[in-house]
Amino acid sequence: MIFEIIKSEGISHNSYFLGSEGEAAIIDPRRDIDIYLKLARKHDISIRYIFETHRNEDYTIGSLELAKYVDAEILHGSKLNFKYGTKVIEGDTFKLGSLELEVLETPGHTYESISILVRDKTTDKPMIIFVGDVLFPGEVGRVDFFGEEKIPETASLLYESLHEKILPLGDHVIVCPAHTAGSVCGAQIRDQDLTTIGYEKLTNPLLKLDKESFIEHKKNEKVYTPPYFKRMEKNNLEGAPLENPHLEPLNVQEFNGMIKEGAQLVDVRNPTSFCGGHIPGSLNIWSSGFPAFAGYFLDYEDPIIIVDESGSNEFVRRSLIRLGYDNKYGYLQGGFPNWYINGMKCDNLEAWTVDRLKSQIDKGGDFFILDVRKHADREKYPIEGSKHCWVGEIPEKLDNIPENVVVYCDSGYKSTMAASFLKINGYKNVKTLLGGITAWIKRGYPIKK
Amino acid sequence: MIFEIIKSEGISHNSYFLGSEGEAAIIDPRRDIDIYLKLARKHDISIRYIFETHRNEDYTIGSLELAKYVDAEILHGSKLNFKYGTKVIEGDTFKLGSLELEVLETPGHTYESISILVRDKTTDKPMIIFVGDVLFPGEVGRVDFFGEEKIPETASLLYESLHEKILPLGDHVIVCPAHTAGSVCGAQIRDQDLTTIGYEKLTNPLLKLDKESFIEHKKNEKVYTPPYFKRMEKNNLEGAPLENPHLEPLNVQEFNGMIKEGAQLVDVRNPTSFCGGHIPGSLNIWSSGFPAFAGYFLDYEDPIIIVDESGSNEFVRRSLIRLGYDNKYGYLQGGFPNWYINGMKCDNLEAWTVDRLKSQIDKGGDFFILDVRKHADREKYPIEGSKHCWVGEIPEKLDNIPENVVVYCDSGYKSTMAASFLKINGYKNVKTLLGGITAWIKRGYPIKK
Amino acid sequence: MIFEIIKSEGISHNSYFLGSEGEAAIIDPRRDIDIYLKLARKHDISIRYIFETHRNEDYTIGSLELAKYVDAEILHGSKLNFKYGTKVIEGDTFKLGSLELEVLETPGHTYESISILVRDKTTDKPMIIFVGDVLFPGEVGRVDFFGEEKIPETASLLYESLHEKILPLGDHVIVCPAHTAGSVCGAQIRDQDLTTIGYEKLTNPLLKLDKESFIEHKKNEKVYTPPYFKRMEKNNLEGAPLENPHLEPLNVQEFNGMIKEGAQLVDVRNPTSFCGGHIPGSLNIWSSGFPAFAGYFLDYEDPIIIVDESGSNEFVRRSLIRLGYDNKYGYLQGGFPNWYINGMKCDNLEAWTVDRLKSQIDKGGDFFILDVRKHADREKYPIEGSKHCWVGEIPEKLDNIPENVVVYCDSGYKSTMAASFLKINGYKNVKTLLGGITAWIKRGYPIKK
Amino acid sequence: MIFEIIKSEGISHNSYFLGSEGEAAIIDPRRDIDIYLKLARKHDISIRYIFETHRNEDYTIGSLELAKYVDAEILHGSKLNFKYGTKVIEGDTFKLGSLELEVLETPGHTYESISILVRDKTTDKPMIIFVGDVLFPGEVGRVDFFGEEKIPETASLLYESLHEKILPLGDHVIVCPAHTAGSVCGAQIRDQDLTTIGYEKLTNPLLKLDKESFIEHKKNEKVYTPPYFKRMEKNNLEGAPLENPHLEPLNVQEFNGMIKEGAQLVDVRNPTSFCGGHIPGSLNIWSSGFPAFAGYFLDYEDPIIIVDESGSNEFVRRSLIRLGYDNKYGYLQGGFPNWYINGMKCDNLEAWTVDRLKSQIDKGGDFFILDVRKHADREKYPIEGSKHCWVGEIPEKLDNIPENVVVYCDSGYKSTMAASFLKINGYKNVKTLLGGITAWIKRGYPIKK
Repeated sequence: MIFEIIKSEGISHNSYFLGSEGEAAIIDPRRDIDIYLKLARKHDISIRYIFETHRNEDYTIGSLELAKYVDAEILHGSKLNFKYGTKVIEGDTFKLGSLELEVLETPGHTYESISILVRDKTTDKPMIIFVGDVLFPGEVGRVDFFGEEKIPETASLLYESLHEKILPLGDHVIVCPAHTAGSVCGAQIRDQDLTTIGYEKLTNPLLKLDKESFIEHKKNEKVYTPPYFKRMEKNNLEGAPLENPHLEPLNVQEFNGMIKEGAQLVDVRNPTSFCGGHIPGSLNIWSSGFPAFAGYFLDYEDPIIIVDESGSNEFVRRSLIRLGYDNKYGYLQGGFPNWYINGMKCDNLEAWTVDRLKSQIDKGGDFFILDVRKHADREKYPIEGSKHCWVGEIPEKLDNIPENVVVYCDSGYKSTMAASFLKINGYKNVKTLLGGITAWIKRGYPIKK
Repeated sequence: MIFEIIKSEGISHNSYFLGSEGEAAIIDPRRDIDIYLKLARKHDISIRYIFETHRNEDYTIGSLELAKYVDAEILHGSKLNFKYGTKVIEGDTFKLGSLELEVLETPGHTYESISILVRDKTTDKPMIIFVGDVLFPGEVGRVDFFGEEKIPETASLLYESLHEKILPLGDHVIVCPAHTAGSVCGAQIRDQDLTTIGYEKLTNPLLKLDKESFIEHKKNEKVYTPPYFKRMEKNNLEGAPLENPHLEPLNVQEFNGMIKEGAQLVDVRNPTSFCGGHIPGSLNIWSSGFPAFAGYFLDYEDPIIIVDESGSNEFVRRSLIRLGYDNKYGYLQGGFPNWYINGMKCDNLEAWTVDRLKSQIDKGGDFFILDVRKHADREKYPIEGSKHCWVGEIPEKLDNIPENVVVYCDSGYKSTMAASFLKINGYKNVKTLLGGITAWIKRGYPIKK
Repeated sequence: MIFEIIKSEGISHNSYFLGSEGEAAIIDPRRDIDIYLKLARKHDISIRYIFETHRNEDYTIGSLELAKYVDAEILHGSKLNFKYGTKVIEGDTFKLGSLELEVLETPGHTYESISILVRDKTTDKPMIIFVGDVLFPGEVGRVDFFGEEKIPETASLLYESLHEKILPLGDHVIVCPAHTAGSVCGAQIRDQDLTTIGYEKLTNPLLKLDKESFIEHKKNEKVYTPPYFKRMEKNNLEGAPLENPHLEPLNVQEFNGMIKEGAQLVDVRNPTSFCGGHIPGSLNIWSSGFPAFAGYFLDYEDPIIIVDESGSNEFVRRSLIRLGYDNKYGYLQGGFPNWYINGMKCDNLEAWTVDRLKSQIDKGGDFFILDVRKHADREKYPIEGSKHCWVGEIPEKLDNIPENVVVYCDSGYKSTMAASFLKINGYKNVKTLLGGITAWIKRGYPIKK
Repeated sequence: MIFEIIKSEGISHNSYFLGSEGEAAIIDPRRDIDIYLKLARKHDISIRYIFETHRNEDYTIGSLELAKYVDAEILHGSKLNFKYGTKVIEGDTFKLGSLELEVLETPGHTYESISILVRDKTTDKPMIIFVGDVLFPGEVGRVDFFGEEKIPETASLLYESLHEKILPLGDHVIVCPAHTAGSVCGAQIRDQDLTTIGYEKLTNPLLKLDKESFIEHKKNEKVYTPPYFKRMEKNNLEGAPLENPHLEPLNVQEFNGMIKEGAQLVDVRNPTSFCGGHIPGSLNIWSSGFPAFAGYFLDYEDPIIIVDESGSNEFVRRSLIRLGYDNKYGYLQGGFPNWYINGMKCDNLEAWTVDRLKSQIDKGGDFFILDVRKHADREKYPIEGSKHCWVGEIPEKLDNIPENVVVYCDSGYKSTMAASFLKINGYKNVKTLLGGITAWIKRGYPIKK
């Protein structure tokens, strides 16, 4: 038996490669599918099945891309009219070498969600279940995608899927979710790759609620939906076009030309690099935050151009593919140094240390302190006098944010992203807080209870 | 949380890399330790602890090698006087980022065996247990290493470790063993990387026995102990010398010189390649079988020289390191073709298909049919009229094997190995059966019930 | 300045990556173009130009494939109506960072052949010349592609290209040819990657001939033209379809099904492996000989299926791409062992050592000895009594080869290929000579002067 | 024939792998020798000889390290008493497959310098010469290592080596030097990997001088000798200890502890990252400049600790090995962000754009403008009013540099390095010029003629 977890960082997505006796199934493949082909070659195995646990909304699924290269069937739930693949229903089974895969319909997160249960034919007991976005370590799937008014219905369905389909399989069953900590597909996923039904029954607070309380919890849950989800839903319903963007190197003149023509300019360096100097008009999204935040700021039409410390950035390129950005795009050859060495205009952003912020506050400085963390984090420990706006919502709430603002988050990454966005929108007096609330607390400065 | 399984094929050994918040522990590292350093760099993490679940007997442990490069403590059980490292006892705990590791003394396989229980501090429930050779999927550890007379005692200890320490932790706990299917450290390990306590309680027949039956089972168990285990036990008690063999390329003249000086000559090609032509006097151990079988045939003193299809063989080189072979050694540059192109003497071995064997039997051919599979496999379906001798025991039982012999196994690999050994020992009329009993059955030929 | 040689083994093709100050040119790219993209990323450079020194005939050029991914111009000679790209003529120059590339028309090998001369603008002297198939270490290009009757004309053109264009550039100029030793694009290329004009003037016998002798030499030159050249010429004139074959794993049943439907079955193992056992009806072309010999035996329509020691063979897959084989195809999962373990029919081929051949000859054995080497090699040292037929010509000359034949070549690879072809064509009594003439001579056996 | 150039960036060192028929020679191996072993395995070849063209002074040679793993002879010139290896003299020849290597004594750069001439035995003409530091593209070796008073003698020796040994070999001979552009082993090496004797005769101005002018030129040549050269000379005379530093990950507390104990703290990020924020007391040497500049600032005793954008830096680790730094050392886990997130003190450095400098000058700002480029670059185009001190000489000339200083170089890297050094030495008012003189000129600002 071959069991491999393929992790896509940033969107915290897990796909799975399951093989036995020369046959393999892929669960929820990502769009840059080279890893699955590589594993198939390494294990000398044929990919026979591609399962989609549901129409994913946070990345473009790679089923069609993968099916170009292997002779495999694409399988998904029957409650949605996908434009490709084959529908499966409760109880359908598939032989995979010495394993048997059984489909369980587990709606709630979406209506067509399915789980895939694995039995070893030699023992005939449930061993592993691929649950998609139904259950996570410490969390369950979100149920808000069909509108607030549908939450009582979808939450109820999810409750039943959990309590009538998943949990009865037995404490010993290993649970493989489609996401891990950091994903927005669950509000508070615990940082743990694998779990078991029994472990979740012991530790997952949401499994201890009765149905009514569960629905109530879901009605009040604060979750985030980046605008790009709409595009992903369309891609995954219809099948994404089979073309991948290629990062074209652009020299300084070409790059500048793209800026002038309205390309979306993203600086993927770290906050201090961005503060020390950057191209005027650039949005800062640090490289490893790119997959999680690009979808709040970048559209699917205008070219995307990237600046890094030097040359291209493979992780950003793959993230664009995974998020379905098939825009024309390119990167600055030689990275940011090539820009300033050519005498091009540079801008910088003021980075305040927590000491400086504290002393400015103590001096009675007159500025707006903007907390851009998630609500849940914000609530635990805000800086006295600060106001809140989640970074992903700033584009819609600019009216509420005055000039002369110090932005903070947990650490300085999201605040620098927010500050860069404010600068693009004409703010002249913006600072970012290096180290954010974490450094603030480490230095022993006061927070509001 | 970072959780990675490192598989060493051939000896079917699993070691584990467990990390959290910048700190990592390695469980039972192998001796070619580059993979652990690579993972540490990839995850930007410090290896703090090296746990040895027990003094392993089937490979040379890499703890000392690894400790040369990282600032980590080596930890093992207290019931044996290791010449290095630190002893730990029941209940000792170690912090690893947000995880807590607790030591459980679980003797039976060896007296000093320990298991390492992992709790997440945010939930405080047992999540994972590293059990070494105490429990496997479908099997438990062997208990015969201290002699037949000790089996009642060691089996009893193992029974208690399982039923009083491991099983009570709860069905939901994920079980990480030190070996998977194919290892001789358990008689009948199921082919499954991970399991849970609950899954084993449901499916593992040995966990259903009462103590008495369990001990009885262990007394009658047929297991195999390659002679090299003695060397491994010494290495792992005292710490192996920190030196790795280097595969020297040897040209035909140099290689021939080594043969004349008495080097151990191993041909690691596939059976048909060996049958089609080989260097006189060579033992055939196919490459992926090398780690499992080298220990039955190769000593730790004389040089070891290797022939492959072409040039060096990295898997064989690493296997030698893992098995503690620090002999002088080399490989034939250019592989076997370089030998015959230089006009050197070649020999071949007759390979019979199952059709040929069947027709020879039907014709009343006069030859000895030798089955070299394990006892358990042999018993299930022998060819009528065949005799049995497990391939690893042939060196001691040559007297029982007459001239004019057809050797078979499951598939043709072990039989060709056996046949090559017989030829080295002067047998002139030896055949190997291509496809072995598997092909025999597929062709519908009769087996004895 | 960045200068990288990309070697394609088997067809002994060299392509070149030349870069300066952020801009690169590729000379004669192969069709699996990942290496050029990888180098461009590594050096953070834009590929601006793709030069084709001529319409190649021995591999499918990768210009169009590469131009899919980079924003580069495809450039080739003006004396042929290519269906893609841009024509360049004598004296055209291209800026590449601090380098200048100048086009020289150097017909002879083909009419549209060009050479690319590199000058460094800081010195303004010729530094490097990419000569395509005009000049090689120790050899010049062949001129027979347009028919025997055209040789006086093409040889004359080549002579003029060499003596009027290339040699006058100066002894110091580094010469970069499109092929190295082993290619059929030159009869006797010396084994040397780089050379200089001066070194060739000193050592290349063909540069010492006067025009008349040169043409005479060319008229008498014996060169080989695999049938697949016709397809390559078409591909490279029109631009090959942009699709690459993908090696599909096939299990034993699927593989057997393909055989029955008439797939072209190629065993790419070494001679002794093939002799020890193989699938009936398989042609043996050892892996590293695949690119050089596949074109003599495989058509472009029927599926191609591959058997190796185990699983897939990346080099063979790439070779198929390079040679323009876009047939449907696959490989046997698990390699040849999977075949015989499943009880499928096997055949073998008798391999004779040179000792055996000698003793059979001495005994007056009645068999046909077939030498399948190239004419030039054959002439130097034939075995007494042997007959000759170049391996690539056997398909057309089967009538001249009787039953009961021992095949030999230099080493045993080509003879086993030839023997496997004879077997496919119904020969029942065929042997291959292990070690070939090389072993024969090493053993001191007599050759005919 | 196998010919591979191994480039070590930063010190612009070339070593060479030359192979033929199963035997290889390495010329001037670097100390991280894995690349040579990897090439030997790839080509299935035995490394037989390790040539040292001279006792190198800019890196620690890897001969002894390599000889640990392969059975090769170390060979070097006879005019120095190396503590290891074998002396060779003029005319010694070595067979390498079908090649012949001949030793030429070519003193001047050092007294024991040798060149290695390669002939192909099939042509018997000189083909390639490995010249060490005797001749470079556009330059010749420096001759100042034995003191100013010895220059007439060493320059004269070099002149004779060039004109009596190297140049007479013929224009066609390919020249392989030990360094390329950027190395301090030659003052003005042209950016070109390979050259020929003829090309140098045409373009190298130093080869056109008569002996007297040549010596005069050498007496007036301005070259740079980093202090670490002394250590390299000792290492390469005696053989360096065979131990490599290992970059230990250090968490923030451990890292801070090392700073307090006096470790040498190096920030290897780009200038803007450093300007945006850094650990107080850190020296900035950007990663790719590390090998060229570390030797001016870092001693061989105190621990070295590294900060990067994130985690470890393999290039810096290898550079330390190559430069013979076997100090205890480590790196900051999580990179610089981990520092500020933990609330540790941060400092920043002001980066001026060229526009800002210009406007400040125009306003009559009172500051010292410090040019830290090489003399030769400085002379070509200085900013009016600036003073000069080569960055490598700042440590000795601090007295000449007042407070309130703007530092510039070509681009901003060296100036930021210099500025960070000034800050460590108590300067409070230091700026670095982003883009340096290059940007200044691109913006059309005036330079002094």
